[in-house]
Parts: sequence; structure tokens; C-alpha cells
Amino acid sequence: MAGRDPLVSWNQGGIKATLIDFVIRVQQVGGPDFVPPAERIAVFDNDGTLWCEFPLQVQVFFTLDEVGRMARHDPKLLEKPAFKALLAGDLKKLASLPKREVLEPAFAVHAGMTVDEFQKTVADWLQSAKHPKLGRLFASNAYQPQRELLDYLRSNGFKTFIVTGGGIDFVRVVSERLYGIPPEQVVGSSVKTQFENHGERPRIRKLPELRSFDDRDEKAVNIDLHIGRRPILAFGNSDGDLTMLRYTLAGPGARLGLILHHDDAEREFAYDRDFKLSVLKDGLDHAADYGIGLVSMKNDWNRVFA
Amino acid sequence: MAGRDPLVSWNQGGIKATLIDFVIRVQQVGGPDFVPPAERIAVFDNDGTLWCEFPLQVQVFFTLDEVGRMARHDPKLLEKPAFKALLAGDLKKLASLPKREVLEPAFAVHAGMTVDEFQKTVADWLQSAKHPKLGRLFASNAYQPQRELLDYLRSNGFKTFIVTGGGIDFVRVVSERLYGIPPEQVVGSSVKTQFENHGERPRIRKLPELRSFDDRDEKAVNIDLHIGRRPILAFGNSDGDLTMLRYTLAGPGARLGLILHHDDAEREFAYDRDFKLSVLKDGLDHAADYGIGLVSMKNDWNRVFA
Repeated sequence: MAGRDPLVSWNQGGIKATLIDFVIRVQQVGGPDFVPPAERIAVFDNDGTLWCEFPLQVQVFFTLDEVGRMARHDPKLLEKPAFKALLAGDLKKLASLPKREVLEPAFAVHAGMTVDEFQKTVADWLQSAKHPKLGRLFASNAYQPQRELLDYLRSNGFKTFIVTGGGIDFVRVVSERLYGIPPEQVVGSSVKTQFENHGERPRIRKLPELRSFDDRDEKAVNIDLHIGRRPILAFGNSDGDLTMLRYTLAGPGARLGLILHHDDAEREFAYDRDFKLSVLKDGLDHAADYGIGLVSMKNDWNRVFA
Repeated sequence: MAGRDPLVSWNQGGIKATLIDFVIRVQQVGGPDFVPPAERIAVFDNDGTLWCEFPLQVQVFFTLDEVGRMARHDPKLLEKPAFKALLAGDLKKLASLPKREVLEPAFAVHAGMTVDEFQKTVADWLQSAKHPKLGRLFASNAYQPQRELLDYLRSNGFKTFIVTGGGIDFVRVVSERLYGIPPEQVVGSSVKTQFENHGERPRIRKLPELRSFDDRDEKAVNIDLHIGRRPILAFGNSDGDLTMLRYTLAGPGARLGLILHHDDAEREFAYDRDFKLSVLKDGLDHAADYGIGLVSMKNDWNRVFA
């Protein structure tokens, strides 16, 4: 029986029952909660929701390793606290800064590269870069229960999207392989870009200016821009996901909003309201008021990684 | 036999043969031109490529009808030549202005509305608004051969996108019904928006500031932002589509780029280098140099509208 369970890494009852019930209801033609397949849009945050983000987001680890290139490219960068901390490898300092301050430089440092060049650099780095504490390749730090959930949703007519505070070009390198999500279904932070056509093959170049920091309200704005439809399911793990969750839940008909709570110091990490880089405070205190379900990594998942 | 032809409105030979050959080649597993389904991205301009844009784009006709609302909303708008012409209903003057000048006001005039409100206004208008010369509903002015082509591509594993200079919220109202293209596969011009959550149901509101005018180089930039992959097929009808076409054609492997030439004064319209609102000059003079195929509405299509 377990071999046929599409959500085998989820413990019976609780959230798993809620998920299955929701997926069954939206498919009941003629039922009160039926949703046509085209409108079965599910959005997932990435860092801390689909893969490990502690003690730093994967893209920040990447930036740490790229720090030499950054400093050569633009010495002015060193004036910013996040860059100083990055250059000093000061993880403690980094973890004490707001998410935007730490991620924004990470988006800016590859200005001047083409998108293709940047993505090759990321792909090469991911071949061997390991999480300092878990000892696993970053590229294998996707949560197994979430991969099962994404597959389960898709096999029931859902279209799955990532809506991440991370860089859109960065996440697109791994989204298809790790989550079965193609690049056109990845929404994320981005820098401005320009088209170039002088001499060689036309290409897109990254500029040193932020286009969108895809966090909090901006997640709803970018869902509207990229998807053009209100999702019916949203899954996040921090206060940065609350707008996306509440935007999702406020539509008519069947809706589901979930927050993953990192309460599993044994198999992964335990953190929430004190983790500056991805605070979960408002969401933890008011999940019930907002109609959001809290998922306990410790209790709802029988396995974390594959 | 004709009943089984997926491209029945295309005349035999020429472009039709090129299209079928291309679609067969990219599916030949192990062949030199094989493209995995996930990479079979096809992008289509909308105005003048998928539906009629002459003598004015549908969205400009819509704006003409909305002109009273515009003037009440922001009297300063009247200082701009395109608005003056719009308010005077001066079609000749409008057609003499550059596309951006005429479309930009059309994007700005619905600032202050939510996206939902705007789309309801568009949907209501499309119920009865008719093309002044063709006498048909705008909503039935999609080109039948292109609808067949979109279906044909999708049934062969392609994912079809619209990449339009028109407003993304406007085109999304009709894209699914006219072309089978869901909103998340529509890329277009847009104004900035903001998320609102005071009191009522959270929603997205349009602001009076352009976010992106999706024409020329910006089409390639937005393809990278929204799709994240270089298309293998692009279809346009004006110089505004040349960057998208050349970006598409410059990738490795099998590629196809096409321009629809409006040379059919009898069934639709004949225009190209003198039509300011959607000039085709560089594309007409240099199609062969760029490796772009010219499609003749008159000769390649045996039917224009359904």
C-alpha cells in the first residue's frame, strides 16, 4: 500500500489528510469546490519551503564563493555591510542582517555577465558545493515530501510554480531537475537586463540594477505579472510569504495556504522568529487568523531529504 | 484528406511545407534537429500576427471608447498629442504617430482600477465592439490559419506563448478563448501595479506608470524574464518583432522565424512600410539576410477569418 501512496514521506493524518481532501474536492465535477484544471495554480516559495535555507540561503553561499570576482568587478560594493560580511566570510554578521540586504548584493554581483554565462557558473558551482553542516550537496537538499507533493499536484491537473525571493536566473538552473518545474514557471527576484546584438550571437546581459525583489507584497505583484491568475494553493515558510498566502486564500471557492515550520533540529534545523534572513513571526502567531495551516517538519514528515 | 489536414487554411507548398518540415524535424529522436518537448517554445506577436491591427490596434479602439473616463481621471493627459487625437476621435492623426506614443496612453488610462475591474471592462466591451471596416466583432478577428498553426504546434509538443506590444492584462482577456493560450503564457506591455489589502479582499491595482513597453529589444528581455529559455520558433509581422525573431534564430539547432506580410487588401488590408503604428520596413527589406521567412496573407492563406 505504501508503495502506491503518492505522499509516502508525509505522516498520516493532519496536513496530509488536508492536502488529499483538497485535491479530491477541486476535481469533483459538479461539486461545490470544483476548479477547472486551467485554474489549478499552485505556488511554492523555494528557500526554506522546497529546499534548505539555513543558516544561509544557497544563493548566499554561492555568493560567498564568488566573492573575489565581485570585489574585482566593483570595489564600491565593499562599502555595504552585507558585502563586508561576505568578504570576511562572517556568517554570524550575515545572519543578523535583513534578507533584502543580504540577497540584494547577491543579485547585483553578477552584473556584466550574460544570463547564459551566469547560469553556467551556477551549474558548475552546484556540481560540488556542499552544505557546511548537513554535508550534502546543495543540489540534493530539496525536501523529499515537497517533491512528492509537487508530483501529486501535477498528476491531478495542477500547474506548479515557484515564487521565490531568490534570483530567478539562479533558481531556474535547478528547478526542472529538482522539482520538475520548467523555467517559465519560475517567478523570482531579478536585476534589469538588456538585449545585445553587436557582432556575435544575440544575448541577454545582466545589469547592476535591481528590477524586482520578489518578497512580501512583491510576490503578489509578480504572480499577477507572470501568472495572471490568482493561485488556489500557496505554500511558504516565512513572513515574506504571507502576502502571497493571503492573496491566494482571499479568492472565491476552494483554497489552501500552508506554512512549513522548521522545528526539526535533529534532521534539519529549528528556527523561526529569530532568523533574520527569513523571519517567521507574524505567520507563526497568526496562522489560524489568516486561515493558514502550519506544517511541522518534525511531525508531518517521516523523511526530510531523499 | 482536407478534413484531416491540421493546417487546412494554409495553401499547399511554400510556407506550409516549411512549417510541417520544421515540426517533423524537431520531433525526430536521434535526428540532427531533435528538440526535447520542454524546449519547444514558440512565441507569437499578437497585433497583426494573430488578429487584425489595422487601421488601429484593438486596444486603441478600446481606449477611444473609454476616452471619457480617461479625461475625467487625469486632465493632464490631454496635453499629450495621442490623447488629444484620441479625444477628438482623429484616427488619421493617431495612425501618423509612433506605436509607443499611441499605446502608452492606452496603458496609462486605466490607472487606479484593479486588474480585475479593468479586465471586466475589457470583456464587457468586447461583447459588442465591432471593427469599423470589417464589420465583425473585434473578438472574432483572429486569423484562422494562425489558430490552426497554434493547435498544430501544441499537438506536437510545443508550448505556445504570446509576446505582444499590447497590454498584458488586455490580451489575457482573450488569449485563452481565441488562441488556447492561458494567461501565464502571455507576455506583454504592462504598467506598474501594487498589492492592496486594506479592509476588503486583497487585490492588485494598476498604477499610472509604465513598467515595460514590450516592443523591439524589450521583447527579448521579457522573453528571458517570463520564459527563461530561447524560443525555437517566432512569428511576428512588424519591425517591432525583429529582435524577438533574431534572438530566436540565433540559438543553436533547428530554428524558424516568420513574418506575416499584410498584402491582402481584398480580404483584410495591405500595409507595411508606411504604417507608423506597426512599421514593417527593415523586416521587409532584409528578411532573407536575417533568415526570416515572409508569409504572404494573400498567397499563403486560403482563408483569413473563421
